[in-house]
Amino acid sequence: MKYGIALFPSKEIQDVANSFRKRYDTNYALIPPHVTVKEAFEIGSKDEIEAYIPKLKEIAKETQPFSLIAKKLSTFSPVTNTIYMKVEPVDELCKLNEKLLSTDLPDDRKYAFVPHITIAQNLSDDEHSDVYGSLQMKSFEFEETIDRFQLLYQLENGMWTVYETFRFGE
Amino acid sequence: MKYGIALFPSKEIQDVANSFRKRYDTNYALIPPHVTVKEAFEIGSKDEIEAYIPKLKEIAKETQPFSLIAKKLSTFSPVTNTIYMKVEPVDELCKLNEKLLSTDLPDDRKYAFVPHITIAQNLSDDEHSDVYGSLQMKSFEFEETIDRFQLLYQLENGMWTVYETFRFGE
Repeated sequence: MKYGIALFPSKEIQDVANSFRKRYDTNYALIPPHVTVKEAFEIGSKDEIEAYIPKLKEIAKETQPFSLIAKKLSTFSPVTNTIYMKVEPVDELCKLNEKLLSTDLPDDRKYAFVPHITIAQNLSDDEHSDVYGSLQMKSFEFEETIDRFQLLYQLENGMWTVYETFRFGE
Repeated sequence: MKYGIALFPSKEIQDVANSFRKRYDTNYALIPPHVTVKEAFEIGSKDEIEAYIPKLKEIAKETQPFSLIAKKLSTFSPVTNTIYMKVEPVDELCKLNEKLLSTDLPDDRKYAFVPHITIAQNLSDDEHSDVYGSLQMKSFEFEETIDRFQLLYQLENGMWTVYETFRFGE
């Protein structure tokens, strides 16, 4: 079964992200807008994931609430045609990602950690150019506090369900 | 902002529910398969919902893990054309629902508590008859342990995001 770890920003940011995602993100219906802090990984059984929970709690306890700052759009092109709201890589967020990677949990990551909220993906090259051009006009400026992360698992249809929440400092 | 409280069954049950929901449930993309234990209610601010968290933790602590048993389909017709996997109203589940209703959280419920996992809704009367007739052939028998509930909030597009998980006995 596939698991992943993500942060969910506030409704305010999620609503803005969804206003873009609705048209441009093929994964729109599979998960609400989020920042992935550990890419999907495969775990065999419920017992196995339960064995990792204390470690995740420990990481959450050591983590202080931090600012999620999102002010502009960017793209992973030419690597992929994914367009995203860039999330500033503040220290505490990067440390959280590093700690999550340093556990014994399987690590299937393909890229370096670039915190982001995806708003468009699986576009053709032409669509990507058009959409990225037109989205450049959009302005937003968000700063809010993130105080938890969530462990999710994936269903057969690709949708994600939250398995557990971990509050920072607890 | 709208909040609600739900149980998410295992991937196994969710996958079966989704195999029906995909065709028949207009809310398929808004939330993974779930059992609502407290209907959607309106809360003004993050501070206000945070004030309720200790009470929800207390309820979780008092609740023992219980069996989720789902063996047959049923329908709310003629009240609504909703078809669902009937979840046996075991004591601990009903007590959980009662406790969640006895808090000061706003209570907008319209119906008595009938635990269920919705698999079809917003069907016309004819569709309902056809679908309910054909689904009667499907057999399943699930029994598993539920050990947590989740508090969720709703985005503008109707999708739900998990705000927090509450483990029973903790």
